Amino acid sequence: MKNIYAIGVGLIGGSLAIDIKKNNPDAIIHGISRKDATLEQALSLNLIDKKATLDDLVNADLVIVSIPVDATVKLLPTILDKIPDTALVVDAGSTKVDICKAVENHPKRRNFLAMHPIAGTEHSGPTAAIAGLFNGKTNIVCEIEKTTFKLQEKALKLFGDIGMRMRYMNPADHDKHIAYVSHLSHISAFMLGKTVIDKERNERDIFDMAGSGFASTVRLAKSSPEMWTPIFKQNKSNVVETLEEYITNLTRFKEFLKDDNFEAIYTEMKSTNHIKDILNGIN
Amino acid sequence: MKNIYAIGVGLIGGSLAIDIKKNNPDAIIHGISRKDATLEQALSLNLIDKKATLDDLVNADLVIVSIPVDATVKLLPTILDKIPDTALVVDAGSTKVDICKAVENHPKRRNFLAMHPIAGTEHSGPTAAIAGLFNGKTNIVCEIEKTTFKLQEKALKLFGDIGMRMRYMNPADHDKHIAYVSHLSHISAFMLGKTVIDKERNERDIFDMAGSGFASTVRLAKSSPEMWTPIFKQNKSNVVETLEEYITNLTRFKEFLKDDNFEAIYTEMKSTNHIKDILNGIN
Repeated sequence: MKNIYAIGVGLIGGSLAIDIKKNNPDAIIHGISRKDATLEQALSLNLIDKKATLDDLVNADLVIVSIPVDATVKLLPTILDKIPDTALVVDAGSTKVDICKAVENHPKRRNFLAMHPIAGTEHSGPTAAIAGLFNGKTNIVCEIEKTTFKLQEKALKLFGDIGMRMRYMNPADHDKHIAYVSHLSHISAFMLGKTVIDKERNERDIFDMAGSGFASTVRLAKSSPEMWTPIFKQNKSNVVETLEEYITNLTRFKEFLKDDNFEAIYTEMKSTNHIKDILNGIN
Repeated sequence: MKNIYAIGVGLIGGSLAIDIKKNNPDAIIHGISRKDATLEQALSLNLIDKKATLDDLVNADLVIVSIPVDATVKLLPTILDKIPDTALVVDAGSTKVDICKAVENHPKRRNFLAMHPIAGTEHSGPTAAIAGLFNGKTNIVCEIEKTTFKLQEKALKLFGDIGMRMRYMNPADHDKHIAYVSHLSHISAFMLGKTVIDKERNERDIFDMAGSGFASTVRLAKSSPEMWTPIFKQNKSNVVETLEEYITNLTRFKEFLKDDNFEAIYTEMKSTNHIKDILNGIN
């Protein structure tokens, strides 16, 4: 695995480049990005060894696609067109149905492995890339049976070596479940941030009163809208469903409050408290 | 300041006891709690020096009340009845209107200072107490003019010495603003946890897919229902108002999604993104 092409060199692409380079010191990491300034930044941060373009993919052994999911859908067929028959292409997108669909009939479908490494921070861009981001985290792998066996092995070793635990799932289940544990959390945080910012406009200095609890709950509202808008677009029906359930639960809680039903308020919280045990498995 | 009585020896009372004892090594920290087991735990953790009862308050120089806000409202008049004329009583409750009202006409009102130290974690009980919890944090002080000047000075030194920055506010403004930056965050987290747990019941292993983003957003759902039910009860009208605004924002976001208005989705997130700069001041 000599020539690795990172298409997208931000938080995910950059962090993958760091860990993979560490395990494969002889590999050359080529960076590809729409913006030359991003590539220059990635170069100066030593995330990549060289700048490249899509036409260079003819030399690829491995291509890692970590760009917004709408760009992935658009670009993936072209990437497969350009790579040699022996190359492996993986993506790291937060949605899987549309991405898998985009290449389902591509003659080089067997060179592609659809993945979603569940790791990240609220930051973005090359400066957000950090070593060890994926260690101990889950990598959701979709439609593994559609990838050539040799390339499956290659991918599993590559991502196993950086500390990831594989979990296999079909794209529809992935998109449905991830809506609950990731996409909804982001909307919840963004709208909490909005509600408080709107209030702050009229009532100054509210944020002086905010503590670490607020900071934690609203943290994801720092996330990149460029990344998240296409995720919500591609996973619209699932996200709408989770939002409806969330709004229903919030409305019920509000009604309990208005009705002075504090026994129900207590029970609602108590029955959610065992999230403690659930979260012990997550860091 | 020889005899300090901590009524409530959990996360807040215990952490205050640790820091205050450190700055005042000659003081004796007496613990008071409804449950003897809690006091024994606090003793064994060295949070307190001795166990005590309300009748011992006759010897108090300082009383720190860190119990659920409904218990504070009920107990505060009795505490003031029992203390000597020279003693200072402070509370640490998350609501201030009802607590201030409970003692507004008490003959020893001037011995009381209403406070809300904005610090904590999602854990509770004596084992949750930690040193340095209040360092660099904000302490909201209400109706300071109603407290004897000498006792004001005493309180400001005491809480300044453990690293707190005072902020003065009337109880109604406190309760209104804290509903946004604290109470709403808790409900948001509890209902997010509930929504995902409910789903998990039917769709197993969702939590395998949860990452640090979910863990952060839902962290406050580990909080104590015993502590939070009375807070929501006392701050009902403000909390209902914040919930209504939050639900309205979530519903709007959902409608944008349903209408495929992804420009609006982008704008909603982009305009909330500057929460980054706001949060830089909070840790």
